[in-house]
Amino acid sequence: MKLALAQLNPTVGDIAANSRLILQSIGQAAEQGADLVIFSELVLTGYPPKDLLLKPRFIADNQAALQEIAAQCQSIGALIGFVCEHTGPTGKQLHNAAALIQNGRVVATYYKQLLPTYDVFDEQRYFAPAKSQQVVEFMGRKIGLTICEDIWQTPDQQTRRLYEINPFEDLARAGVDLIVNMSASPFVINKHAFRIDLFGRQCRQHRIPLVYVNQTGGNDDLIFDGASCAFGRNGELIAQARDFEPDLLLVDIDRPEQNSIASVKSDIASVHDALVLGLRDYLRKCGFRSVVLGLSGGIDSAVTAAIAVEALGADKVTGVAMPSRYSSDHSVNDARDLAGNLGIPFHIIPIETAHCAMEETLTEIFTGLESDITEENIQARLRGNILMAISNKFGSLLLTTGNKSELAVGYCTMYGDMAGGLAVISDVPKIMVYRLANYINREREVIPISTISKPPSAELKPGQVDQDSLPPYEILDDILERYVEQEQSFQQIVDAGFERDVVGRIIRLVDRNEYKRKQAAPGLKVTSRAFGTGRRMPIAQNYTQK
Amino acid sequence: MKLALAQLNPTVGDIAANSRLILQSIGQAAEQGADLVIFSELVLTGYPPKDLLLKPRFIADNQAALQEIAAQCQSIGALIGFVCEHTGPTGKQLHNAAALIQNGRVVATYYKQLLPTYDVFDEQRYFAPAKSQQVVEFMGRKIGLTICEDIWQTPDQQTRRLYEINPFEDLARAGVDLIVNMSASPFVINKHAFRIDLFGRQCRQHRIPLVYVNQTGGNDDLIFDGASCAFGRNGELIAQARDFEPDLLLVDIDRPEQNSIASVKSDIASVHDALVLGLRDYLRKCGFRSVVLGLSGGIDSAVTAAIAVEALGADKVTGVAMPSRYSSDHSVNDARDLAGNLGIPFHIIPIETAHCAMEETLTEIFTGLESDITEENIQARLRGNILMAISNKFGSLLLTTGNKSELAVGYCTMYGDMAGGLAVISDVPKIMVYRLANYINREREVIPISTISKPPSAELKPGQVDQDSLPPYEILDDILERYVEQEQSFQQIVDAGFERDVVGRIIRLVDRNEYKRKQAAPGLKVTSRAFGTGRRMPIAQNYTQK
Repeated sequence: MKLALAQLNPTVGDIAANSRLILQSIGQAAEQGADLVIFSELVLTGYPPKDLLLKPRFIADNQAALQEIAAQCQSIGALIGFVCEHTGPTGKQLHNAAALIQNGRVVATYYKQLLPTYDVFDEQRYFAPAKSQQVVEFMGRKIGLTICEDIWQTPDQQTRRLYEINPFEDLARAGVDLIVNMSASPFVINKHAFRIDLFGRQCRQHRIPLVYVNQTGGNDDLIFDGASCAFGRNGELIAQARDFEPDLLLVDIDRPEQNSIASVKSDIASVHDALVLGLRDYLRKCGFRSVVLGLSGGIDSAVTAAIAVEALGADKVTGVAMPSRYSSDHSVNDARDLAGNLGIPFHIIPIETAHCAMEETLTEIFTGLESDITEENIQARLRGNILMAISNKFGSLLLTTGNKSELAVGYCTMYGDMAGGLAVISDVPKIMVYRLANYINREREVIPISTISKPPSAELKPGQVDQDSLPPYEILDDILERYVEQEQSFQQIVDAGFERDVVGRIIRLVDRNEYKRKQAAPGLKVTSRAFGTGRRMPIAQNYTQK
Repeated sequence: MKLALAQLNPTVGDIAANSRLILQSIGQAAEQGADLVIFSELVLTGYPPKDLLLKPRFIADNQAALQEIAAQCQSIGALIGFVCEHTGPTGKQLHNAAALIQNGRVVATYYKQLLPTYDVFDEQRYFAPAKSQQVVEFMGRKIGLTICEDIWQTPDQQTRRLYEINPFEDLARAGVDLIVNMSASPFVINKHAFRIDLFGRQCRQHRIPLVYVNQTGGNDDLIFDGASCAFGRNGELIAQARDFEPDLLLVDIDRPEQNSIASVKSDIASVHDALVLGLRDYLRKCGFRSVVLGLSGGIDSAVTAAIAVEALGADKVTGVAMPSRYSSDHSVNDARDLAGNLGIPFHIIPIETAHCAMEETLTEIFTGLESDITEENIQARLRGNILMAISNKFGSLLLTTGNKSELAVGYCTMYGDMAGGLAVISDVPKIMVYRLANYINREREVIPISTISKPPSAELKPGQVDQDSLPPYEILDDILERYVEQEQSFQQIVDAGFERDVVGRIIRLVDRNEYKRKQAAPGLKVTSRAFGTGRRMPIAQNYTQK
């Protein structure tokens, strides 16, 4: 039996465009001799459709589109992810579903059993779970159907299980010949290696082959890395699609030697490619063609600019240096060198005139008061205003350039450097930003060495460097990973060998700066716990750990 | 049996402070001769604790605090909402729980059965449901314990039910003498009347009395209106606590004539009081004591200022007029009159100098290009910068003043008039803003009549009025309520009698401005569907209705 794994990049909500992509893949798969073409989870609506699911008309439109696709799918079988109404007497009104199409019509419909409701996932907000096993007969074989979360349980885990049932086990017990998994599994650094291990182990344990089809592309904060793959009954990888782009992978489960295994990126290269894809798709799916960003001469804006050029091309990225009275010469030089290396349009727009005007404007009301953080923020917000004006005037999306470490502790200015439509590296800790810079420079000096080697500074007052206010980034990032990603307590972090005062201060900064993150631009998720939709903290709260 | 309904205003996460409030109420209730004091849902952590629940240490702290409270609760019984670990073999690791305390120790623990996961609620993200009925014996009576959602099912509803079980019915069948409901039920206009009807009907149907204890106070976007109450077995209201403030209500369920029924506000008065409470608590719980806001002379900033004065007192509210070359004389006069009527500090800070400086700064890069929306946004953002500078310098929270109609269609400037820490009226449609203004003026002219009677204008270019860009607010608000609150389709709205072109344009504006709302300040929820945590729309999406 020949399967085609259709790894598409759907646009959320764009049922018409997604239908066209699906029909194209059906045609190609048929042409290449596949018996069954398998799509990813909710491919018809794009994943995640979020509260579009609460619009009855949206559900109706998606069901009508499925019927139209079915009518045009005559020569081949197809498994298509869509949203199905739940007609049972109680429960949520929808199912996260898959339709089996044969001979031009939907012959069976299957539902997701396990509905993730944690991190960025809200599936119990919308869907009722399937109550029974999902087995389909196709070409004389029994295929067990699963959707994403249905197979995310480690067979040997020691910890308590999140779900009462284990669909992989249940299907094995039902004696299926093959398990199909239709997924929309977002990228997180090192996650694909985890998938390969997790899926392979389950295949080996139950002696059943598995075919896994993932979505690719960026949708708001989430990036789907594709890398759809297939496993033999011994858990061995027998086929793999490309990562971070659409693909149509033919898999002959009876003749594994015929299949191809694309190599996929790991570690920092995968983060780089994820950000490139996430940026490119956010622009495309929002209808933008170009971006603008401020170039401070520092590493964050340099890495962001390099990623933007990789995603869009140099002519679609405009860099703007906005020196102030506190800017060092090397800042503008480094920014200019970067722009030169990248070959992007570059402007220098000094803020001195506007800065003086704002000082004059506020002279009276600030009479007799000392300079403080206020004066630093004014400069950052003038830059935000200039960049947004350029964004508005030229129709270019403004990128923000802040990293995760800054965002965590609030070392950033609302409406200033936080202004923009997409936060490209807001889930990348500072130390990982350096790794990205070195990766970007792997073949030639794209990011000026002096940008990488100089001490980070916001340059909002004379002689300022980040480490005036923050511990060294090695320490800060370690504490932040423990506190934000691992939910360790104050005491646990102290016990791991960090200074009490430092830990206490960092935790307080993280907690107290939730209000800034509430108004942050959407940021591309690359770690297991990103700020944004996957971390829902109250703002007006007062939990204090001793 | 004498019950005390302890209607408190806990702070989310502040376990120590909430414990003190609880102990105080236990003492008062005992003093007043109550046999059992009943608290609201999750009173110990405050509701909603959100992702604080994912911190193991937070759960441990809350359980330790419960034990400390129990030890000090000797002379009276108490029912206290807290978070309990779920020790079963599968499922989420927590229960939304209530502890029954008698004689200084926790004698029984009960769990919530129905976990709302819709609108602003995410309970299945955290909690496992109780699997069985929750009956407790107290002073020889069988009391059925329920938590909030457990009793939110209309007995005679025609539509499909969201849950398989109905705890009220089940408890009735088990022959309980009384049902207790511990709630954290957020305010929505007209919701309390709905509660009275819903609860009363269930009591009547099953011939069982009910005691309902609600939280009061504001927590971020949610405002809890209190108005805890009790019903007799015929569904009649026999006692009611005050709304929008803490209260301790004694209820003798055997002698209803002894009980007091506080009157509660409805309609526009309730919206007013909700906003006052929401604003006051957001400030207090974030550690702010004063606010600043821009006064444009228009109705939105006037209503916001009046609410702030009601919440904080006139000396804690600073108004700033920031006239530009396009401002009419009446704008500054109306702003000054308002400030005079309210008795608040008032500053006039013209933006002309900064405006000219920004024009000069951008002259080169904008050479040869026409004026457009860019130039309007620059002015709004200069005002945002000035207000944030005042906020930073004086430690006053900046309030944003935009209404729901503007926010819906994106008639607002990011980092400009959208800048601020709390959006006081962002869930109030424009027509309701007028009703609020008239309510505020019910006894004397607080908001100048000319502010109410003149046509709304952003004054960002010569002669501009809102209705240049938008349909009349009566029509706009009606379309928005259908589209946003009721999830009606394009066709349904057209069928209701609105022009196709207008409906199409408004729907597109709502959909395309999601990116602005993503970065909006938290706003106080007063309608059934507020922008924010209860409406989770993708940004990069392309659903188009025909």
